[in-house]
Amino acid sequence: MRTIDQIEPFRVMQLLERAKELEAQGRKIIHMEIGEPDFHTPESVRNAAKKLLDNDQFYTPSTGAPELQQALAAWYEQEYHVQIAPERILITPGTSGAFNMLYAVLIDAGESVLLPDPGYPCQRNFIRLAGGQPLNIPVGPDSRYHLDGALIDKHWQPHTRAAVVINPGNPTGTVLQRQSISELAKACRAHNGYLISDEIYHGLTYDTSAPCALEVDDHAIVINGFSKRWAMTGWRIGWAIVPEKLIEPCRRVMQNIFIAAPTLSQYAAIEALKATDAVEMMRSAYDERRQYLLRELPKLGFDIVVEPQGAFYIYANVSKLTEDSKSFCWRLLEQAGVAITPGEDFGVYQSNTHLRFSYATHLDDIREGIARIAAFLNK
Amino acid sequence: MRTIDQIEPFRVMQLLERAKELEAQGRKIIHMEIGEPDFHTPESVRNAAKKLLDNDQFYTPSTGAPELQQALAAWYEQEYHVQIAPERILITPGTSGAFNMLYAVLIDAGESVLLPDPGYPCQRNFIRLAGGQPLNIPVGPDSRYHLDGALIDKHWQPHTRAAVVINPGNPTGTVLQRQSISELAKACRAHNGYLISDEIYHGLTYDTSAPCALEVDDHAIVINGFSKRWAMTGWRIGWAIVPEKLIEPCRRVMQNIFIAAPTLSQYAAIEALKATDAVEMMRSAYDERRQYLLRELPKLGFDIVVEPQGAFYIYANVSKLTEDSKSFCWRLLEQAGVAITPGEDFGVYQSNTHLRFSYATHLDDIREGIARIAAFLNK
Repeated sequence: MRTIDQIEPFRVMQLLERAKELEAQGRKIIHMEIGEPDFHTPESVRNAAKKLLDNDQFYTPSTGAPELQQALAAWYEQEYHVQIAPERILITPGTSGAFNMLYAVLIDAGESVLLPDPGYPCQRNFIRLAGGQPLNIPVGPDSRYHLDGALIDKHWQPHTRAAVVINPGNPTGTVLQRQSISELAKACRAHNGYLISDEIYHGLTYDTSAPCALEVDDHAIVINGFSKRWAMTGWRIGWAIVPEKLIEPCRRVMQNIFIAAPTLSQYAAIEALKATDAVEMMRSAYDERRQYLLRELPKLGFDIVVEPQGAFYIYANVSKLTEDSKSFCWRLLEQAGVAITPGEDFGVYQSNTHLRFSYATHLDDIREGIARIAAFLNK
Repeated sequence: MRTIDQIEPFRVMQLLERAKELEAQGRKIIHMEIGEPDFHTPESVRNAAKKLLDNDQFYTPSTGAPELQQALAAWYEQEYHVQIAPERILITPGTSGAFNMLYAVLIDAGESVLLPDPGYPCQRNFIRLAGGQPLNIPVGPDSRYHLDGALIDKHWQPHTRAAVVINPGNPTGTVLQRQSISELAKACRAHNGYLISDEIYHGLTYDTSAPCALEVDDHAIVINGFSKRWAMTGWRIGWAIVPEKLIEPCRRVMQNIFIAAPTLSQYAAIEALKATDAVEMMRSAYDERRQYLLRELPKLGFDIVVEPQGAFYIYANVSKLTEDSKSFCWRLLEQAGVAITPGEDFGVYQSNTHLRFSYATHLDDIREGIARIAAFLNK
């Protein structure tokens, strides 16, 4: 099969397109499928960007504006008490760009990367586009839907190069604590591979916090960005923190595939790091929505087996309601006007009996969504 | 050899780093190596962006903001008298992103793409990163440094998928006219492959204009962007125009590797399409510099074999001055403080006896550069 034929579309896009058709017909649709913050970018960031527009908008160096690299290094020290040389922080067009770049450096044809199933659907495609093979490892409530040291040891192959964790998880919102990350990092090291820690939902945690993988192992690769915590999706700024020896090959790839990340967004992002009040306002709004859903969903038959403590997702077992979560989601959209992502978007392991709620939607809409689902289920 | 080890750095970057060291020591360096406009983004575009910052900065659809796709479709009709369905215009983070996406769709391991040597250095790397093989075809003054139908027929292999032309050329600035493009398009069609026309320097032409490949063949793939003509490098907005049947596979790749191009830049780019006066001001400034260099360089022994009619580059044969253009460029930098790109950045064919002047630099600096080179050569 040609590489391009292995690249899966976002299946939820079909559902989203149908939702837009229904909206065009005048129906109000409740969107609990989308993984994009509903908040505006903090005003301080937008105001800073307005001023920055008076400056040159030339290319920055390929690895990023040094000022942003330095600001992030200072932020890591403050946030996680880790010291990172600024030049190890590579600025990318979003985390998508970071993964695209990283796999170009790490993977050759026939090599593999361990991923959790369920997991972020693009991961599989990033790896295939680099000529590699995603090894999807079923994970469940036992390991809080994450890979662990035993799973790494069991599934690592001779040509495996890395294992990816996303912490807090997508679609499950579960958080890995320091001991678990340390175990994962040790297992990857033992196999001469990399632990890649996707930390894009860091900061969006409730009653806990997620440790940075670099707190436990300086050899880990960390991916993060401004899209979620700072509500800056359309700005397209992410970063990768890599071990010293990967800087040079990463730079070579970045010079070619990006030239550089958008200049205005890079400088505006420096301002974002100061917007702690705006970030806390969003976080507490998400938490309110989360608590509401954690109370209401079980009443309707959605089992939340492991409490999600981060991101803005709730992954629910729907086996009490259906054995086919995909058609359940389609019926829910058509009949109740509520859009939810079916499990199949995240993998194959028990995907027919799971689905994902996103609460990156206003609480009023979420309340209406719950009322509609209750009516749909005749409860 | 691992893929990453085949990815060449921009060799001129070492020269540029040394230039920066010299500048840090207080020396003034004349930069005639850089392929980035020295002009600010037009003020109307920056003002539009300031207003747009009051809007949401959410993701656009993966293939681009429909408003920009429509504006570009209207622009193609006005500029080239070709009618293109807006959905065929895929908005990318710069032309680098466009090529990265395109080769992910077109190329599988072991397949090849025909390129001119000398040519844009990233092309070879884009193709290698997709697992493909660049076939570098020596081109010279005979074909005005471009591929032609006979070269395509001669070098096309069973697993060749496409041929790339850049028109106007980099590093040569030579323009392909309609008859030549038509011949190229026919040759690619005859081999069941694609003609890819990189038109990033369109609009920067002098005493002529460059035809769009779509004027002669609707099956061609066109790549273009806002970086050069509109002086918008740091905004990172390019586009690819693809045949209908490639839209869906391109979208799948774009959803994964980009999610979408930067939102603010996409909407600001709509304003750029109206900035015709600002564009003409820049074009005529480039032309003045070009004419100056075309007069002065031959006096110093730089042979310009085919007149460059576009882009902001002059490719010169320096065999009267040296058989080693690379060390010539290094000596020129160290002794005269003038930075020029050696031929080796663009390929291997006669690269030791060629180099590239960029005139994306103020005319005052260019004059000083010429004076310094004259002194360096004792002329």
